[in-house]
Amino acid sequence: MDNLIYDPLAHWVWGGEWLAKLGALDFAGGTVVHISSGFSALAIALVIGKRREFGEVSIEPHNIPMTLLGGALLWFGWFGFNAGSALAADCLAANAFVVTNTAAAAGALAWLFASWYSGKPSSLGMISGAVAGLVAITPVAGYVDVISSIVIGGIAGIICYRALLFRVKIKLDESLDAWAVHGIGGLWGAIATGIFATPALGVSGLIYGDVNQVVVQITAAMAAVAYAFIVTYVLAKIVDATIGLRVSEEEEYVGLDISQHGEVAYT
Amino acid sequence: MDNLIYDPLAHWVWGGEWLAKLGALDFAGGTVVHISSGFSALAIALVIGKRREFGEVSIEPHNIPMTLLGGALLWFGWFGFNAGSALAADCLAANAFVVTNTAAAAGALAWLFASWYSGKPSSLGMISGAVAGLVAITPVAGYVDVISSIVIGGIAGIICYRALLFRVKIKLDESLDAWAVHGIGGLWGAIATGIFATPALGVSGLIYGDVNQVVVQITAAMAAVAYAFIVTYVLAKIVDATIGLRVSEEEEYVGLDISQHGEVAYT
Amino acid sequence: MDNLIYDPLAHWVWGGEWLAKLGALDFAGGTVVHISSGFSALAIALVIGKRREFGEVSIEPHNIPMTLLGGALLWFGWFGFNAGSALAADCLAANAFVVTNTAAAAGALAWLFASWYSGKPSSLGMISGAVAGLVAITPVAGYVDVISSIVIGGIAGIICYRALLFRVKIKLDESLDAWAVHGIGGLWGAIATGIFATPALGVSGLIYGDVNQVVVQITAAMAAVAYAFIVTYVLAKIVDATIGLRVSEEEEYVGLDISQHGEVAYT
Repeated sequence: MDNLIYDPLAHWVWGGEWLAKLGALDFAGGTVVHISSGFSALAIALVIGKRREFGEVSIEPHNIPMTLLGGALLWFGWFGFNAGSALAADCLAANAFVVTNTAAAAGALAWLFASWYSGKPSSLGMISGAVAGLVAITPVAGYVDVISSIVIGGIAGIICYRALLFRVKIKLDESLDAWAVHGIGGLWGAIATGIFATPALGVSGLIYGDVNQVVVQITAAMAAVAYAFIVTYVLAKIVDATIGLRVSEEEEYVGLDISQHGEVAYT
Repeated sequence: MDNLIYDPLAHWVWGGEWLAKLGALDFAGGTVVHISSGFSALAIALVIGKRREFGEVSIEPHNIPMTLLGGALLWFGWFGFNAGSALAADCLAANAFVVTNTAAAAGALAWLFASWYSGKPSSLGMISGAVAGLVAITPVAGYVDVISSIVIGGIAGIICYRALLFRVKIKLDESLDAWAVHGIGGLWGAIATGIFATPALGVSGLIYGDVNQVVVQITAAMAAVAYAFIVTYVLAKIVDATIGLRVSEEEEYVGLDISQHGEVAYT
Repeated sequence: MDNLIYDPLAHWVWGGEWLAKLGALDFAGGTVVHISSGFSALAIALVIGKRREFGEVSIEPHNIPMTLLGGALLWFGWFGFNAGSALAADCLAANAFVVTNTAAAAGALAWLFASWYSGKPSSLGMISGAVAGLVAITPVAGYVDVISSIVIGGIAGIICYRALLFRVKIKLDESLDAWAVHGIGGLWGAIATGIFATPALGVSGLIYGDVNQVVVQITAAMAAVAYAFIVTYVLAKIVDATIGLRVSEEEEYVGLDISQHGEVAYT
């Protein structure tokens, strides 16, 4: 099997060549984009530490309509990302397009229901769940059918929500929840590729009786987790010790828009 | 004539099978989506009654740029809805795409000119007219040419605007004007299908001398109006009498965002 | 060479026929849309004069997130404009699509770096640079390769930024910078067509040793500049002298939303 055909985006970043040799599958960049970014965010959040007000006052998105609009545009753009990874306007692209949508919808619903236990479900939770579903389906979009995509997206919505609760519980300030949504969602997607891949699309996953692929996927995902976390942590520590990584307390008090960017959102 | 070919979306919801047997045409779901939603909205608005401040203070959209942006994205998404109902990337899809755009543009202009008499035309009226045109062209997008689409969209803009004025005059509080825009616009679109359908696309409408199709369309549309209004009214009355349909006066005073959803738009 | 094949949009507006006879190239309307609008804006800005507060208080966009969102949607829509000008879903359309993106990205980066000298680079500058790149690539999208598009977009970002600084220096109040971005960017794009056109796409530009095309492009661009500026200036003067072009001082003080449109953005 020529993985170069199946992993067109894996060569974008470091590790793609290695992943391909191992036989790991990553249709649209779940491992190399989402695991990498999510666990790098965790490492940097640990090095930078908490914001001044973290845990004292609520730090929520200030404009929910814009957050929902951004999520909706992201959902739409993701069709290009996943279906486009087929590198042709063919059936594989159409399959990737459809499973991207069902996974996002399942993730949105799953997060809503999962969060219902800790209070009212929110539209912010709904769109977070949709992104979790999108992240999870990214590496697997070219290998699974619609039913599997609903399961993958739904599980992504639940475990990413639980990861967020865990992140809050250990008082970790990672403001965008890149770790909870992209890191954990990406990790789940990479493993799910080995579980749900269908022979109809060229690869047999665990549910089709083949244990080989899921072992390869877990190996590759764990390597990506370790690499992203350790190397980013070391780099962040070096930057922190030399030119500095965190703004001064005064600059933080004034706000980064003014102190760092010299531009305010609303005038 | 096999209506299953012409009515791919009619099978989505209840009534599709019946509509197809009758010979009624509904290219992208005008009857089953817009008539149903519009007249159901009317029924629910009658059961729920007016908001506290209705008629005393002006209740307008609080953010016109977001309303315009939402309308623009809806216009764009409608291309997928109508052209996609051809279920192929063929000439029928291209025709549906083009007439969708011209009907929306004609609806926007018609609403602007129609509202000029009662004061200054507004951008909110412009985008409402565009939606009216989009609603009206939905059932007919696969059966008419561009000139007819301009007439259909233009008439939709005028009659939906008049329906809104009538709704205000009878002091009916239907906050989104789903009845005026989707109900009346959908009703007009269903009837227009029987008037403007061109033999070049497989069906002859009234303007091509065939009275048969318009009679079928009016029959089907009236059946949809009656079914949607009556069944929704009965269901809403049952819900109202049992678990309750309207929030308490205090919850309404506080606002539904806080009292029902537990989430505010801006913090 | 049949320029009618290469200039499908040139016939939209006055001058298209003339441009085609001259042999000037304009793939998606850079000359007829951007040069015309930019230099017409300059003419009208000169006739109308400055706003009351110009030069005294800062008049910036009041909502940068909406400005960025609008720029992003414009960038996306431009794919339809430029790639669509191939009038077919072929390789020429794909080339136009790709170079549109790289030119916009190069323009964004170039404006950021160019503005770094006069202070912090801003996100408003970034999106202005992207639009400058999009404007410049418009006439040339069907004639150049990716490397040339990066050079064209990058130079557009720098010269449009310099044009804006010049506009501020001469205390000209042209609120949207249509002249700096669309006028100068369009002028550069028209000339760049003659410099970078590649024989692989049917025309040889200056960098491929053929001086003929760039002379034709400069001639056509200068004709468009002169026509747009002079005719618009004369028309604006006539309107100003008869029915009036500028609102009264009181209406300006109240604001055009209320005094002219009778509609406010936020309630």
